[in-house]
Amino acid sequence: MTNTQICPKEFVDLALRLAEVARPIAQKYFRSNVAIDDKDDASPVTIADREIEAAMRKLIEAIFPDHGIFGEEYGKTNENAEFVWVLDPIDGTKSFITGKPLFGTLISLTENRKPILGIIDQAINDELWLGAKGLPTMFNGKPATTRSCKALGDAYMYSTSPDLFDREDGTYADFENLRQKTKHTLYGGDCYAYGLVASGHADIVCETGLNAYDFCALIPVVEGAGGSFTDWDGRPLTVDSAGDALALGDASLLGDALAALGS
Amino acid sequence: MTNTQICPKEFVDLALRLAEVARPIAQKYFRSNVAIDDKDDASPVTIADREIEAAMRKLIEAIFPDHGIFGEEYGKTNENAEFVWVLDPIDGTKSFITGKPLFGTLISLTENRKPILGIIDQAINDELWLGAKGLPTMFNGKPATTRSCKALGDAYMYSTSPDLFDREDGTYADFENLRQKTKHTLYGGDCYAYGLVASGHADIVCETGLNAYDFCALIPVVEGAGGSFTDWDGRPLTVDSAGDALALGDASLLGDALAALGS
Repeated sequence: MTNTQICPKEFVDLALRLAEVARPIAQKYFRSNVAIDDKDDASPVTIADREIEAAMRKLIEAIFPDHGIFGEEYGKTNENAEFVWVLDPIDGTKSFITGKPLFGTLISLTENRKPILGIIDQAINDELWLGAKGLPTMFNGKPATTRSCKALGDAYMYSTSPDLFDREDGTYADFENLRQKTKHTLYGGDCYAYGLVASGHADIVCETGLNAYDFCALIPVVEGAGGSFTDWDGRPLTVDSAGDALALGDASLLGDALAALGS
Repeated sequence: MTNTQICPKEFVDLALRLAEVARPIAQKYFRSNVAIDDKDDASPVTIADREIEAAMRKLIEAIFPDHGIFGEEYGKTNENAEFVWVLDPIDGTKSFITGKPLFGTLISLTENRKPILGIIDQAINDELWLGAKGLPTMFNGKPATTRSCKALGDAYMYSTSPDLFDREDGTYADFENLRQKTKHTLYGGDCYAYGLVASGHADIVCETGLNAYDFCALIPVVEGAGGSFTDWDGRPLTVDSAGDALALGDASLLGDALAALGS
């Protein structure tokens, strides 16, 4: 079992084609009063989520039939393959269905369960972040780099919702402790917030309760821009990780951030 | 003292010119690593805020020298005039400085302290909501209308941040009570969330701690689209109101929403 040092161009090319396939579908259904189904966990899903994922799976299967696929809507196919595409057709479905253009299509490729490629595509604002192992992260075709931030007290932090954090198991208290130490905390970013860190406009994203299809694509984007992406114990994430995520534009914040989270 | 029934065209025309003046300045400084000052209340302000407000004030003074002006950055001029322009050059400065395109320029005109005209302008996404007394709200030149929502349990609610709500004085508990009764609550919308309600993509915005320059422009936008805009006691807001705001796309939710807030 070898591990790729530089993500092959053929994988990057397919990832970009997947984003091209997804975009017009997201655009077509955005602000269209699309019907909303509530899944078993009460999270909403629309025909846009399903149509995008189906189109992406079809293209992957045509080009790399040996690859596995793990998508939010249609589950796992050949999940123990060396290469598995991890897909969230619309991350931030609540943003999507309320007309807020911060949702994103997340496209990731894992190699031996580790993410080596990630795309965050914002179809409405025409914004695409591409991270690939061994290569610099690109934002709309130009290199993206995180910014320096040497103290939590100077950091602008994002988190999609405080309601992600459980008040019983301590994660809410841990997050609150970190929040109190930052300069400002903003909410509601979905995957877009990780793009803002990668592009050097914000410093931290801290979340929990994420699924593999929520976080896999974000990791190469943040790391390839110079940032750090770990769980709340400072470990790198794989497709099998629990869903706590800590993205830092400046990796020198890691010790203080983990300490604030009680790790 | 008479009150305008239909907002005169000359006022609407000036408001649109103010937005035109503001836009290129916001665009120029967005994601430009602009220097950030911290005001006395620790809220951030940039040269973009100041340059936009200065440009808007200059234009108002040239065209309606008898009108008053109340702006976030440069305060009050002739504040007891019959007509007073209430300006927030960049609502959502934290969004602006972290590169999130949901901030807005808020332009309002009050007549005898009541808002009769409001603009929410999103310079990056090229989105403008215009509300004017006696006229339908327009979104990018087309009529905007709120949507029907007959039960809190079906409502998608926005609020910029749970940190707006004071845990000591009961507002946090009141908000939490309302949040628990809605279907989903999203955060991080700034003024943009009120536009989403006006356009029928979301149902409720509930906030507190707002200043007159934060809320005056929003009222004609939401009301002109068919919605309701009150404080947490169900009263209409004037420039002198305390800053608790409850915007509803469907006014039939008002009783239940106020009850949930403990009013």
